[in-house]
Amino acid sequence: MAVSMVSASVPVFVRMLGNVLGWLDKAQAHAEARKFDTANYLTMRLAPDMLPFVKQIQIATDAAKGCTARLAGIEVPKWDDTEQTLDDLRARVKKTIDFVQSVPADQIEAGATREIVIPLRSGERRFDGQTYLEHWALPNFYFHVTTTYALLRHAGVDLGKADYLK
Amino acid sequence: MAVSMVSASVPVFVRMLGNVLGWLDKAQAHAEARKFDTANYLTMRLAPDMLPFVKQIQIATDAAKGCTARLAGIEVPKWDDTEQTLDDLRARVKKTIDFVQSVPADQIEAGATREIVIPLRSGERRFDGQTYLEHWALPNFYFHVTTTYALLRHAGVDLGKADYLK
Repeated sequence: MAVSMVSASVPVFVRMLGNVLGWLDKAQAHAEARKFDTANYLTMRLAPDMLPFVKQIQIATDAAKGCTARLAGIEVPKWDDTEQTLDDLRARVKKTIDFVQSVPADQIEAGATREIVIPLRSGERRFDGQTYLEHWALPNFYFHVTTTYALLRHAGVDLGKADYLK
Repeated sequence: MAVSMVSASVPVFVRMLGNVLGWLDKAQAHAEARKFDTANYLTMRLAPDMLPFVKQIQIATDAAKGCTARLAGIEVPKWDDTEQTLDDLRARVKKTIDFVQSVPADQIEAGATREIVIPLRSGERRFDGQTYLEHWALPNFYFHVTTTYALLRHAGVDLGKADYLK
């Protein structure tokens, strides 16, 4: 497969979200060994004005589903942010993997030149699909995935770089 | 420009490394306001078994220069890891931006099918250039850039998401 809108998006999301599932398993094992409630992870923050763990995963999954849907020109599925447990978060990650894999490749490919409009607090931002993927969706996705990893490392979960780049 | 090996690499590195320079300026201002030595940032870690700030920037820049050189089939420039100040780190980031922009685009483009060999502690890893870019170099680059950001946020530097996705 040549480098393409699809190769640069769906398999990237699927692989990294699969890795996140592995981190959540290790987080669960760590909590069981130390006998604390896994729900404690969800409110952890790296700084008091950064978003908590639960939000990092919600936004990472939103980034993957939003990118895939917008590139394909279909409506972005709206999921409520109601996760309260690690299992809820696992289910959201799995649902995201299923969703991005369900979107037809040719529609994503056609998204390279599609106009993408992102609503921001500061106003709308407009991109062509390619710029959106390379300079917005991917960095944003990696930001929240890496922050998820950093929070778990900070919490003492037995993770290493090999769990990130698996 | 259609999605390509070049569009997915060089401008991504240049943009994010440019953002890192902005973060370092804010880190400097924060240290001056609080009257601490900016060199204190260099040894900060998010966890005792994670690499310190100085290493995060060294590896992020290595990821950018290594990826660009390997895709182009040229020797990866070897830079000693001797940075001891924020200014040293700024210089390294700027040198990286200059280097990745100096590599001929057609050579990077031809890297899609080039065999890339990465030496790891666990042995060699082999990829074609495209898989290397999408599933190794970019996630690794974003990992170290985001960890750099997380460390500065943790240190109280006045950064927000808009500084990351500028």
